[in-house]
Amino acid sequence: MDLHRLTRELHVKNNSKIVMYVADGLGGLPQQPGGKTELETANTPNLDALAKIGVLGSSIPVLPGISPGSGPGHLGLFGYDPLQYMIGRGALEATGIGFELKEGDVAIRANFCTLDAKGNISDRRAGRIPTEESAPLAVKLRNVKIAGIEVFVEPVKEHRFVVVLRGEGLQGNVHDTDPQVTGVPPLDPHPADDQSKKTADVAKEFIRQACQLLAGEKKANGLTLRGFSGKPALPSYEEVYGLKAAAIAVYPMYKGLARLVGMDIVGKAQTLGEQMTVLEENWSKYDFFFIHFKYTDSTGEDGNFAAKVKRTEEFDAALPRINALKPDVLIVTGDHSTPSMLASHSWHPVPTLLVANNCRTDSCQSFGETECLRGGLGQFEAKYLMTLALANAKRLGKFGA
Amino acid sequence: MDLHRLTRELHVKNNSKIVMYVADGLGGLPQQPGGKTELETANTPNLDALAKIGVLGSSIPVLPGISPGSGPGHLGLFGYDPLQYMIGRGALEATGIGFELKEGDVAIRANFCTLDAKGNISDRRAGRIPTEESAPLAVKLRNVKIAGIEVFVEPVKEHRFVVVLRGEGLQGNVHDTDPQVTGVPPLDPHPADDQSKKTADVAKEFIRQACQLLAGEKKANGLTLRGFSGKPALPSYEEVYGLKAAAIAVYPMYKGLARLVGMDIVGKAQTLGEQMTVLEENWSKYDFFFIHFKYTDSTGEDGNFAAKVKRTEEFDAALPRINALKPDVLIVTGDHSTPSMLASHSWHPVPTLLVANNCRTDSCQSFGETECLRGGLGQFEAKYLMTLALANAKRLGKFGA
Repeated sequence: MDLHRLTRELHVKNNSKIVMYVADGLGGLPQQPGGKTELETANTPNLDALAKIGVLGSSIPVLPGISPGSGPGHLGLFGYDPLQYMIGRGALEATGIGFELKEGDVAIRANFCTLDAKGNISDRRAGRIPTEESAPLAVKLRNVKIAGIEVFVEPVKEHRFVVVLRGEGLQGNVHDTDPQVTGVPPLDPHPADDQSKKTADVAKEFIRQACQLLAGEKKANGLTLRGFSGKPALPSYEEVYGLKAAAIAVYPMYKGLARLVGMDIVGKAQTLGEQMTVLEENWSKYDFFFIHFKYTDSTGEDGNFAAKVKRTEEFDAALPRINALKPDVLIVTGDHSTPSMLASHSWHPVPTLLVANNCRTDSCQSFGETECLRGGLGQFEAKYLMTLALANAKRLGKFGA
Repeated sequence: MDLHRLTRELHVKNNSKIVMYVADGLGGLPQQPGGKTELETANTPNLDALAKIGVLGSSIPVLPGISPGSGPGHLGLFGYDPLQYMIGRGALEATGIGFELKEGDVAIRANFCTLDAKGNISDRRAGRIPTEESAPLAVKLRNVKIAGIEVFVEPVKEHRFVVVLRGEGLQGNVHDTDPQVTGVPPLDPHPADDQSKKTADVAKEFIRQACQLLAGEKKANGLTLRGFSGKPALPSYEEVYGLKAAAIAVYPMYKGLARLVGMDIVGKAQTLGEQMTVLEENWSKYDFFFIHFKYTDSTGEDGNFAAKVKRTEEFDAALPRINALKPDVLIVTGDHSTPSMLASHSWHPVPTLLVANNCRTDSCQSFGETECLRGGLGQFEAKYLMTLALANAKRLGKFGA
């Protein structure tokens, strides 16, 4: 069932405001069984106060047991079934560095590699070449010239960079050139369908010229291309929900994901405080606000329990500025769990909180993983958050008579 | 996944009796956050006693956030995925007034409207003409004669009436003639596919003759047609569940919905007490009984909290007569929530109770929205109630070896 078939038909407009306040990687784990998670350890008076008047639940980002990346995690929150809408690796990588893909572009994730005298790969990551060395090489590859094609090359980090091809008749169904092993040469780019033949030819020419430009380099004298993909075709928030939506994020990846669903990227905030200022300044201009806080995830990824607790408290402390705006619907959640005990994204359900008039408050008294199990939203797939948001904002009409 | 593929294959017959006792719009909201809902406020000793020995849960009528009309609400309870089985507007309206649609009929929801001297619509609802005036006009339209077609015209309420066309080769894919605005003439009925061309022609002729019959009327001198639809193709309870089913309802809409899934409409009860008598009288003749109580919904729609509480107590008070019959499975639920705080159908999950030997009782002590959150059925889509009913009645065999 395509949820958007329903929301397209049923949505109505009004003056309500919806805020989705996302702590990346919010869900966690205790340091020992029976202990408290990062969120439960943190002193979060504002979240706890909202828990008393709102309704809680546990959001399953994709399906039980599935640990999502940032792409599927956010698509779920935005109400786009992450199993239906896939963002290709190349497109996600381009999105992550703030590259604005256009319809018809093909984005490719590229790795520098080391080739031996015979042209076989001796190191698939070019000795994990540091960014200071690799970035100028990526820029150098901008000298590749292919007739009728605009070629963009953007450095990322260490051995990674992004290539975007822009031109007529390009399609993204091309196989990776990374053979996944050393001792063999990179594969040629092979089209997976007839429509992608031109892309494969262009990629081949790109590789040829790039290798010439890299000749003489010690570590990064070759490259592999992966995750060829076009701009994902995502219907917009305006179309499927009738919402004029703004994203207030610091990191390019989350701005990019929000842009893919048609949100405006507002402000240039670098801190949570600045994000709140941007929210206040834009309050009258939008129906929906997505506010992204990164550091609950990055501290979790670092395996730093105490730091994640502290970042959670910072996230909580900014809430009064949202409350002061009196949103009609406020949702607090994460795109997935990042338990510092695992130092990685995980499959665990994500604590979620929805506050609205008539949200049917449950008996929960604080915001945390265990308390959320008693919540009125139960366990639900993240993709339903948007129908719940719209319903609570009185923006969804009745289904059937 | 079509649930009926499973139930068709797995159902077995035995002498068990299943009762589904439905309080329309049962779910509610407290008058202030943290307060009690209508059901929690009501004195319901019989429901509470069942809650202690049964298993509770929260039923999601369609999907989280979706507020259903009566059609999808009941289809869900009956185990028919409300997103898979849609009932057209015209068919539902005909059903709602007790018109028994036959295979091949096309039902249309019609509105009287006011046309100005140029034939443009000046009032899309004919000045909300009162039923006393509109009903005789609808009856007058029975004088329309179309060769080879039986035309039924049934008054509904105020400006609304129902037209049913019966004859060979009619299909329901015809666009509405209501232009949705005033100052323009009604649209012609246009077929959306070739198979519906004849229906469009017949409708055009109906409109021509109807306008002649209405000529001279001040308010209702024109009409628009909407929601052309055939009888929905719903497999029967007998076929998908192996159940001989009876519906005991007071209002035509619910009798009609039950008839669409092949239930027999038994008795002519006008009160809940009379419904219980009908139940007793028919106890030996059926496997499954659907008992519908309307007033928890209508008081909710009226926004009358106290009246809904009272009606809930009335619903509760009738339970001993059901209990006395010792059904093997008793389900108590609603087709959706109708919180008096919203005075409308809503998306909130519906308190649900199932009692049967071996139902695996949970620790719940009373029947109410908050208590149901702790229940053993969890939160579940309404469409699964029938598989749960069959299982608890030992009417479902093992799936796979």
